[in-house]
Amino acid sequence: MTTKTLLVLGGARSGKSRYAQHLAETSGARPVLIATAQAHDAEMRARIARHAAERGPNWTVVEEPHALAKALAREAQPGRIVVVDCATLWLSNLMLLEADLAQASAELASVVARLAGPAIFVSNEVGGGIVPENALARRFRDAQGSLNQALARTCDAVVLMNAGIATQLKPGAEPKFRF
Amino acid sequence: MTTKTLLVLGGARSGKSRYAQHLAETSGARPVLIATAQAHDAEMRARIARHAAERGPNWTVVEEPHALAKALAREAQPGRIVVVDCATLWLSNLMLLEADLAQASAELASVVARLAGPAIFVSNEVGGGIVPENALARRFRDAQGSLNQALARTCDAVVLMNAGIATQLKPGAEPKFRF
Amino acid sequence: MTTKTLLVLGGARSGKSRYAQHLAETSGARPVLIATAQAHDAEMRARIARHAAERGPNWTVVEEPHALAKALAREAQPGRIVVVDCATLWLSNLMLLEADLAQASAELASVVARLAGPAIFVSNEVGGGIVPENALARRFRDAQGSLNQALARTCDAVVLMNAGIATQLKPGAEPKFRF
Repeated sequence: MTTKTLLVLGGARSGKSRYAQHLAETSGARPVLIATAQAHDAEMRARIARHAAERGPNWTVVEEPHALAKALAREAQPGRIVVVDCATLWLSNLMLLEADLAQASAELASVVARLAGPAIFVSNEVGGGIVPENALARRFRDAQGSLNQALARTCDAVVLMNAGIATQLKPGAEPKFRF
Repeated sequence: MTTKTLLVLGGARSGKSRYAQHLAETSGARPVLIATAQAHDAEMRARIARHAAERGPNWTVVEEPHALAKALAREAQPGRIVVVDCATLWLSNLMLLEADLAQASAELASVVARLAGPAIFVSNEVGGGIVPENALARRFRDAQGSLNQALARTCDAVVLMNAGIATQLKPGAEPKFRF
Repeated sequence: MTTKTLLVLGGARSGKSRYAQHLAETSGARPVLIATAQAHDAEMRARIARHAAERGPNWTVVEEPHALAKALAREAQPGRIVVVDCATLWLSNLMLLEADLAQASAELASVVARLAGPAIFVSNEVGGGIVPENALARRFRDAQGSLNQALARTCDAVVLMNAGIATQLKPGAEPKFRF
């Protein structure tokens, strides 16, 4: 069975990008990266450079910090495989623009449900720590959790990364309980 | 086999409450919510309203921010199913009262071990981030981890939520190592 | 089949140390603890005392906050089993010394790959929360994620702890996708 859409979840430095890139590079299709990062500071430039160094030479790179749903609908075509890296930076870019995050997440999920070609989404788990003291951070954490749930519902498959190891969550063995 | 007590663990916005509510609503028993939240500010009021909107109309709701063990012993009866949402807010409420968190956790686990009816506990994973700079946050993080371990030991079953997907941890395949 | 090197990953208070100690105490080999903690303050002294109280009497304890690779190469011998508790405090000690964390991690992984006896490594997942506001915390989070990936690649086996429950990640069922 083939997978059309895959969500790669995980914490910071859990190997999400490398895993998504590896799947795309070994898929047989032409890999297209939709990069959502913006090189505003040295830290982000270093991160972008690190990801670029890990990629093979056969990638097409499309930079799209904001209009992700549109870029995705355009780039996901038969014969290609799109990697979106990452949904978290996209959401963060929209928050800086004071966009409606719930509406943007719903629009993205709706586009993901009807793509013409395969796509892999990289997204961060950010809800595993203590409640942030910063109200904006709490709002972002909630929006990211909701986006991850929407993408997980829509995608055919979901994996969770820990220390570079992928565990498949969907499709998976759904727990059954009788009370 | 029937499950008497289930612990639903997960980070913020991982779908814990919705999953627990769904299990209770489809269990055939009469669902009772023990709500531990206190509507002290707009953020918490919005959260309470969101959870209420997700629930069906057939719930009995009991608000109990502090005396959880007592409420639980009283409400967990045959023919009903109790959802405690959530252990994290209860622990946080007790911390504000400067209660002995280790003792309260032990008392709760001891009541959970001998309930007259089924119960589902929602609790947060809060230990997956960087060490908090705030000493109180570090203390809470430790107390929450200890409470989760006590509940996981006592409950018949444990699931972990990620992006709305439940993975069963207990009963599960215990790893075996020979060194 | 026997396991030579095991990585025990998990968040704060997820039961990592207790699990590693239990495995070592029931392995039949003589348990040796390489402790990386430094008793600089009351909080750390309490933590060290808690871990000591959980250990049986038959342990040899070696304190080594910095030169972990060297201590490990020396202590890991046939007939013994070494527990390193924990890689996170070691990395944090090195960061305070402004050491090269990438180089230290690579050296450690290279020693782990050719030990003369079995070893269990305790290490924290710290990347599951919101992006820290503190730049040093972000740098530590990245270094810890990279170290965890290096140890996970090198070790024969990896488990993830949640609320005291161990889930085996490696060796495991590697997901297979066809796009």
